[in-house]
Amino acid sequence: MSLLDQLPTPVVLAPLAGGPSTPELAAEVASAGGLGFLAAGYLTAAQLAERIARVRSLTEGRIGVNVFVPGPGPAEAGSYQPYLERLARWAGERELPLGDPRYSDDDWPAKIELLLRERVPVVSFTFGCPERRVVEALRDAGCEVWVTVTSPDEAAEAERGGADALVVQGAEAGGHRASFVDRPELPVYALLPLLALVRSRSALPLVASGGIATGEALAAVLCAGASAGQLGTAFMLCPEAGTSEVHRSALQSDAETALTRAFTGRLARGIRNAFLDEHDASAPIAYPELHYVTAPLRQQAREQGNPELVNLWAGEAHALARALPAAEVVRQLVADARASLSAAAARHARAR
Amino acid sequence: MSLLDQLPTPVVLAPLAGGPSTPELAAEVASAGGLGFLAAGYLTAAQLAERIARVRSLTEGRIGVNVFVPGPGPAEAGSYQPYLERLARWAGERELPLGDPRYSDDDWPAKIELLLRERVPVVSFTFGCPERRVVEALRDAGCEVWVTVTSPDEAAEAERGGADALVVQGAEAGGHRASFVDRPELPVYALLPLLALVRSRSALPLVASGGIATGEALAAVLCAGASAGQLGTAFMLCPEAGTSEVHRSALQSDAETALTRAFTGRLARGIRNAFLDEHDASAPIAYPELHYVTAPLRQQAREQGNPELVNLWAGEAHALARALPAAEVVRQLVADARASLSAAAARHARAR
Repeated sequence: MSLLDQLPTPVVLAPLAGGPSTPELAAEVASAGGLGFLAAGYLTAAQLAERIARVRSLTEGRIGVNVFVPGPGPAEAGSYQPYLERLARWAGERELPLGDPRYSDDDWPAKIELLLRERVPVVSFTFGCPERRVVEALRDAGCEVWVTVTSPDEAAEAERGGADALVVQGAEAGGHRASFVDRPELPVYALLPLLALVRSRSALPLVASGGIATGEALAAVLCAGASAGQLGTAFMLCPEAGTSEVHRSALQSDAETALTRAFTGRLARGIRNAFLDEHDASAPIAYPELHYVTAPLRQQAREQGNPELVNLWAGEAHALARALPAAEVVRQLVADARASLSAAAARHARAR
Repeated sequence: MSLLDQLPTPVVLAPLAGGPSTPELAAEVASAGGLGFLAAGYLTAAQLAERIARVRSLTEGRIGVNVFVPGPGPAEAGSYQPYLERLARWAGERELPLGDPRYSDDDWPAKIELLLRERVPVVSFTFGCPERRVVEALRDAGCEVWVTVTSPDEAAEAERGGADALVVQGAEAGGHRASFVDRPELPVYALLPLLALVRSRSALPLVASGGIATGEALAAVLCAGASAGQLGTAFMLCPEAGTSEVHRSALQSDAETALTRAFTGRLARGIRNAFLDEHDASAPIAYPELHYVTAPLRQQAREQGNPELVNLWAGEAHALARALPAAEVVRQLVADARASLSAAAARHARAR
């Protein structure tokens, strides 16, 4: 039996690596009956250990940890050199700070060691399916292993790799696409058809992710075969989230989003701004190298309150996020989902 | 009260202009309790009149007619000249036929005159919202006027323009995007977030369109605020559909789809093939001019059974379409949707 069958409410907090993720947010979602998530991405294993301890001090609810699977190795420097030169010229003219490109495995071995010791109920993965040895070690340690997938092929690969559940991420999701590799013209499935295609091939429990901002949309994915919805943007205005002020403000607009590699060298959805529009067409695939290049620029812009240079990750329905305590967001989502399901079931009970 | 409130089953046939649309398919969907649709696109008004008469001879069920709203005028020839030269060179090497670029209003005034006389229950529009005079004349003639929208802004414009209902088309839909204008970097919303965003701003009845191939997905959009689902690809394998053999065969594969302007000069989703991959990156915005240029090439390829040169319009979930009579497709969709709604409602009735 999956942990998903035991969750009091079918709401999973998306990991939200890179700022919005806090132990307080995860704890509030868990205490409200959902599955709280900590993002391990961009943290050291030591920082992650602190956050796990903190969240455990705050709640007895269920918690997961999300980990970025490292890529096969550094990107070829030649592939991103022209973009580096472009950014250097552009930033130089504006006296903006840039960092150096570097590869990193994001402290992968130490994080896996930590998670084997910590035995959190769920460990989910983004950017790939770990090797079988890791999956089995985690399961032996008592963790459920979830793998995030963006296509039917990735779903099949994750199932063969031993995943206990699949987080099915649609095109509408904010932040990075979780695809196992990033490549040009990779198909970008929307959530509903992707759920249907994956469900037609796999009996694994599915968690639906991407653009879910209302109880009605949560009800929709539950009908479409998901055991729960994973919501990120919907929690980013909560007081418990670490979302920057400039990001909060942008989320509350009805600005358009787009998929871009401009900020990090990996495809991600964010609100369109000057940086995205200026550099999107030139950005190569080079993650995490370009993440480290633009990090100082983005950090300074956040501090200065300049939305035009910040990676404003957001799902397509960001304008519907609400600035309420996380527990209240969970309560309203579930109440609205239940009302929506009951109403639709009653209305169509008599259909031919 | 909208016709949508009176439909025995919440299933609307997508118009499927250009071949798959037949009076027989529309009649079968209507007789099964859904809303049958005839596509007026690419027909003369006289051909459309024959089809309306034919469908009325076949069913007493409810029927709609979908009309393409003509663009503001011919595209600037310079904007597509390089693409024409590219295609001419490429086709010449292969001894393939091409047509001449031409603008057309697709017999718009005569079709509107016809529909005012015929008084079909629903007239829906694609590629724009007609001027208020036309909307009001149709309504005075007893027709409901539906407008297809692809963004919250288009939804607001259609509501201001007097639409009775909105067909909300998500990114996952097969065939042409219905956007009021085609322009580069137009936002492409997935269905679920688009439904939520439109619903948050409008009380009009909504019909959800794009990637709905199963009863579970139909149940999903009903929860998400739609009064019905509009399905196209899901009916393209029906014996009543006019889908070509080469197209039927492609739909049954799990091939990837992509959005492209390569075939018609307007953004549309089809199964990737040699023509799409070869020309996609070069294709400008020039509709219907490029439609007429590639029409002979596509016609010949259909006749010769060559899938690599045909516009294989398909929604993202095309692999789930079933080769069953249309009435049986409707029955299974509705039965599965009802089962899915009941199960989800029961499972979550006790959530906190």
